[in-house]
Amino acid sequence: MAAAEHAISPTREQDYPEWYQQVIKAADLAENAPVRGCMVIKPWGYGIWENIQRGLDRRFKATGHENAYFPLLIPLSLLEKEAEHVEGFAKECAVVTHHRLELKDGRLVPAASAQLEEPLIIRPTSETIIGEVFSKWVKSYRDLPLLINQWANVLRWEMRTRLFLRTAEFLWQEGHTVHASLEDAMHETLQMLEVYRAFSEEELALPVITGEKPAHERFPGAVKTYCIEAMMQDRKALQAGTSHYLGQNFAKSSDIKFLDEQGQTQFAHTTSWGVSTRLIGGLIMTHADDDGLRLPPRVAPKHVVILPVIPKPEAEQGVLAYANEIAAQIAKCEYAGRAVEVHIDKRDMRGGEKSWQWIKKGIPLRIEVGPRDIQSRAVMLYRRDRGAKEKEQISLEALPGMISRTLAEIQDNYFRAAKDLCDRNVRSDIEDFDEFKRFFTPQNAAKPEIHGGFVLAKWCEDPVTVQLLSDLKVTVRCEPLQQSGRAGKCVITGKPATKEFIFAKSY
Amino acid sequence: MAAAEHAISPTREQDYPEWYQQVIKAADLAENAPVRGCMVIKPWGYGIWENIQRGLDRRFKATGHENAYFPLLIPLSLLEKEAEHVEGFAKECAVVTHHRLELKDGRLVPAASAQLEEPLIIRPTSETIIGEVFSKWVKSYRDLPLLINQWANVLRWEMRTRLFLRTAEFLWQEGHTVHASLEDAMHETLQMLEVYRAFSEEELALPVITGEKPAHERFPGAVKTYCIEAMMQDRKALQAGTSHYLGQNFAKSSDIKFLDEQGQTQFAHTTSWGVSTRLIGGLIMTHADDDGLRLPPRVAPKHVVILPVIPKPEAEQGVLAYANEIAAQIAKCEYAGRAVEVHIDKRDMRGGEKSWQWIKKGIPLRIEVGPRDIQSRAVMLYRRDRGAKEKEQISLEALPGMISRTLAEIQDNYFRAAKDLCDRNVRSDIEDFDEFKRFFTPQNAAKPEIHGGFVLAKWCEDPVTVQLLSDLKVTVRCEPLQQSGRAGKCVITGKPATKEFIFAKSY
Repeated sequence: MAAAEHAISPTREQDYPEWYQQVIKAADLAENAPVRGCMVIKPWGYGIWENIQRGLDRRFKATGHENAYFPLLIPLSLLEKEAEHVEGFAKECAVVTHHRLELKDGRLVPAASAQLEEPLIIRPTSETIIGEVFSKWVKSYRDLPLLINQWANVLRWEMRTRLFLRTAEFLWQEGHTVHASLEDAMHETLQMLEVYRAFSEEELALPVITGEKPAHERFPGAVKTYCIEAMMQDRKALQAGTSHYLGQNFAKSSDIKFLDEQGQTQFAHTTSWGVSTRLIGGLIMTHADDDGLRLPPRVAPKHVVILPVIPKPEAEQGVLAYANEIAAQIAKCEYAGRAVEVHIDKRDMRGGEKSWQWIKKGIPLRIEVGPRDIQSRAVMLYRRDRGAKEKEQISLEALPGMISRTLAEIQDNYFRAAKDLCDRNVRSDIEDFDEFKRFFTPQNAAKPEIHGGFVLAKWCEDPVTVQLLSDLKVTVRCEPLQQSGRAGKCVITGKPATKEFIFAKSY
Repeated sequence: MAAAEHAISPTREQDYPEWYQQVIKAADLAENAPVRGCMVIKPWGYGIWENIQRGLDRRFKATGHENAYFPLLIPLSLLEKEAEHVEGFAKECAVVTHHRLELKDGRLVPAASAQLEEPLIIRPTSETIIGEVFSKWVKSYRDLPLLINQWANVLRWEMRTRLFLRTAEFLWQEGHTVHASLEDAMHETLQMLEVYRAFSEEELALPVITGEKPAHERFPGAVKTYCIEAMMQDRKALQAGTSHYLGQNFAKSSDIKFLDEQGQTQFAHTTSWGVSTRLIGGLIMTHADDDGLRLPPRVAPKHVVILPVIPKPEAEQGVLAYANEIAAQIAKCEYAGRAVEVHIDKRDMRGGEKSWQWIKKGIPLRIEVGPRDIQSRAVMLYRRDRGAKEKEQISLEALPGMISRTLAEIQDNYFRAAKDLCDRNVRSDIEDFDEFKRFFTPQNAAKPEIHGGFVLAKWCEDPVTVQLLSDLKVTVRCEPLQQSGRAGKCVITGKPATKEFIFAKSY
């Protein structure tokens, strides 16, 4: 590859959506499955998910939650109980109608004699079935709070899919909790939003805005929906996680009641909250560059790859022994509470191609070792947060001491770069709807995908404005938790308005 | 509870199958779900599964495997490709036929306009869909071996279900690997069998017999099926894990081909192997007693519970402070590479009832602390491998040093007890079919569930014997890997036979 070229074609500038697909392919993260709308998560992509799971699970347990597992299939009668909820999900669910196949005219078909009396749906989310179970677990105020999380697959029949961002089946976690009072449930809802924020920023290096969704964007059946919103490199918004206060809606439809301390029967207050493999899509669109993925060390499946340079066959034994020695030293290092993961890539292929594979995969550190390095008792270190050719000679003595420090620097650099992009592209000075429209109108009609960014402005919440926004393909992302509190006027209607909202195009 | 009674009613002796259900209930492990044949795995049960996952996952990675994720849904056209396989699974699979619901006469029904052109089944196992994906990944001998594992839910429509042992949906891992040669694939098949054996014995304290399944018990589509078989306390066999050499059957049906070093196109050899939440059923039926569950420390969600004894309100503060001090000390201990998990149970309830809850849950160690213990700078320690009332005073100085040693002793004791039961109940001296029949005929017709145990004997493998065995409700469990090699005669037909097999009633 010539020096001026990039490993990913097209570049972000040339064609952002296609660049995204090419990064996934080049980093070997996932691919479309032989089932419509579903994906195969390949080992490098799944390794990121395992680290996301580990990081979140630790935080869930630290806040008192326990994991459990509930059925994949939901009877229609349970789904129907919450009216708004069924309205929200009935249009996109996979329906199981038979429990056996049989041969008919030489073809395998659902057996007519094995038709279910009541069809079952594959869970698109589990409020209804978990609510049914919780109604048996909760009897008294002593049983509360009930703090449960589930790691699971869910399925929503999506018509337009995109790897990680929107697929029919995806992996996620869904927290479901039950509380005695509105206050306790709201505290939980906001606590889990904060867990998501801290995890996103500290581990994914993904700066987010925390806020509340407007009424028309609430989860079906929720009283309040909170979210974390992140800005991608094309300056569109990605909803990266949600936390819902469900009020007593699901408690009433599922009959979750308890005897309070005074012996009175009360309906409970419930919450639910979730993040999914979509976070990996957000990670890619935030940190990847025109050379491929860049992985924040906290969630990288491996931190360091050692690339032996073997100019002639007789050097092989010595170089591999040296590589093993270095790997053993690095494996003793710790970074962020986890042993540093190091891999020696001994595959028989051209060195340049091998390096570029790892650059595209986004591994934080590459170490080259060859005969000359053995002589000088040193290695060549390459960092993924710097140029592909930029290297540094590190002595063997200094290496162990600098590994975890360098990983921490890379993690910080990625976060800072993402935060800068976001800060530079949130406009809070837009005064009226004309300026607002100009901001969201693509300057280059041929490339509508890269646009202006976020607008932070006051909004009157009048439902008629929703259609105006929809015409612009702009959505109200959230009402940030941080508010100025100052009075002003709605950026769309000019009517008096106090609350500020984030507006953006979105995924 | 009176001293002579047991916490679980009925006892094993009184009614073994019902005892099993009652242990699950008393230990709060799982319950039947509001969907036919499915279960809810409750936090204490799921905590065991998390430890099983952690232990196995470490061993899979140590043997070079990586995790990935494949779709839940399989198109019929893929399932149909392997004739034996579809024959084995078509009769028990959930079929998705629609992708939307609609209201019709006030009821939610599958929308006729959203009927799928090709029905999809929920994976009962994933050989066919993973094979289809692997056929695109494998091009050259350089891509081999391909060593993949998946943690997933699967579904088989079972008519008679029992918690953990046989449910429609269950959680499992399925390994799927591709190799260039028969030798490599057989090595993998046996290596994973050994991983299962070592894990079962070292972590679950579950002694197992490793062997090969007879032809009529093979996995549909496999050339060879190996298994680990364990003896439960009613002396029935439980198949606890299987490892299959699939030959080139699935490679041919899925078209998994590669260019070998000579540039010739070859079909690959594949394997698959799996264990499931059924292991938890095996754990219960092996280690639980008439007082409830007994958890091997290696897979216990928590190792130690501290029970504060507060005789009068003014003692509370001091006792809780003392409990915290002890918990902090214990949390610093390590057992089997993991921090010792300690929990202080501060719930406001009778001390006796609280102790018995933890006995029934099977926690390895209970520590009582009260005002007198503060005085003597000591604690009262109760071990789950000893009588419920048997206790030992341990000084605060001695406590940290003995925790992990005691946990190791308990782990060993459970294994030894299970191994003794198994060894005592494998009969290898049964000479003819009359004696064989007597051995497997219940001595007490009212309690057919407790029976003689395993028979190790020679068998001629004549297919007609399978019906004779079936009439006795006896199955051929496996041909153990360890064979005497001596000639002899078939225990059923008296014909000459060399190979020995394990016969047993089974789950």
